[in-house]
Amino acid sequence: MAAEKTLNDLFLETLKDIYYAEKQIVRTLPKMAKAAQSEELKAGFEQHAHESEGHVERLEQIFEQIGKPARGKTCEAILGIIEEGKSIMEDFKGTEALDAGLIAAAQAVEHYEMARYGTLKAWAQQLGMKDAVPLLDATLKEEEATDKKLTDLGVSQANQKAA
Amino acid sequence: MAAEKTLNDLFLETLKDIYYAEKQIVRTLPKMAKAAQSEELKAGFEQHAHESEGHVERLEQIFEQIGKPARGKTCEAILGIIEEGKSIMEDFKGTEALDAGLIAAAQAVEHYEMARYGTLKAWAQQLGMKDAVPLLDATLKEEEATDKKLTDLGVSQANQKAA
Repeated sequence: MAAEKTLNDLFLETLKDIYYAEKQIVRTLPKMAKAAQSEELKAGFEQHAHESEGHVERLEQIFEQIGKPARGKTCEAILGIIEEGKSIMEDFKGTEALDAGLIAAAQAVEHYEMARYGTLKAWAQQLGMKDAVPLLDATLKEEEATDKKLTDLGVSQANQKAA
Repeated sequence: MAAEKTLNDLFLETLKDIYYAEKQIVRTLPKMAKAAQSEELKAGFEQHAHESEGHVERLEQIFEQIGKPARGKTCEAILGIIEEGKSIMEDFKGTEALDAGLIAAAQAVEHYEMARYGTLKAWAQQLGMKDAVPLLDATLKEEEATDKKLTDLGVSQANQKAA
């Protein structure tokens, strides 16, 4: 009989989930940068694409720390979130409202990541994974900062232009 | 030729998205309450199910304010997030880690809602929808409070039990 599943299993499953999600995000952000109308939003998406590559590397370090192969697991949540973003890009292409829509789509992505990294950090603390905690915390802080930057760009520019 | 799409269209599309999502959430939370092992988590899910019914009603008030029928639009994001929660419920059924997994699933739901209500509130402010803003803000605050309560329950109880 298999041993009962524990928090270690939850941690690994969720690590695979966000690893898959980050890889999807790294592929999606350059498309959003290309679609964005304002230079600032374009630059913001490009910067976050670069950051997200760093997030993938941090996750690979954690897989190594726990002695597991870095492998993703299909994350239906991020696929759904990205799908909705694509619909916005198509439906609002060429309109003044596009950037506001892109910001909303990106903030849904950020919030998904904030939920997952917040959970993983709490679990890593509980499990005494001293080397994983700062890596998860660093990424969590970058996601939070990106979310805030997107809010500011929306309020200061994109929403007014779209209205 | 159809008029160009504007922030009003984005607002309506996103309102339909979260209306569909809230209805899914109202159906899902009682199942999570039933699955939860600790009495506090059970009670928390039940309370939030009740709150979510109120969120649906607030959205219906906003549809009425803008003179549109209250109609949802399939939200792939929430379907993906709920799907992942169901997998956790199945995979960790009967284990000491179940509640920690349920909390993580619920926090992914909360974060999706926080992203959408944050966006809708900013757009309503931009569009001068004075009656919609306080309704969206009230729900946003309840989602944030629920997310925080879930974090506290995880740290104080569920994660320790799961480890």
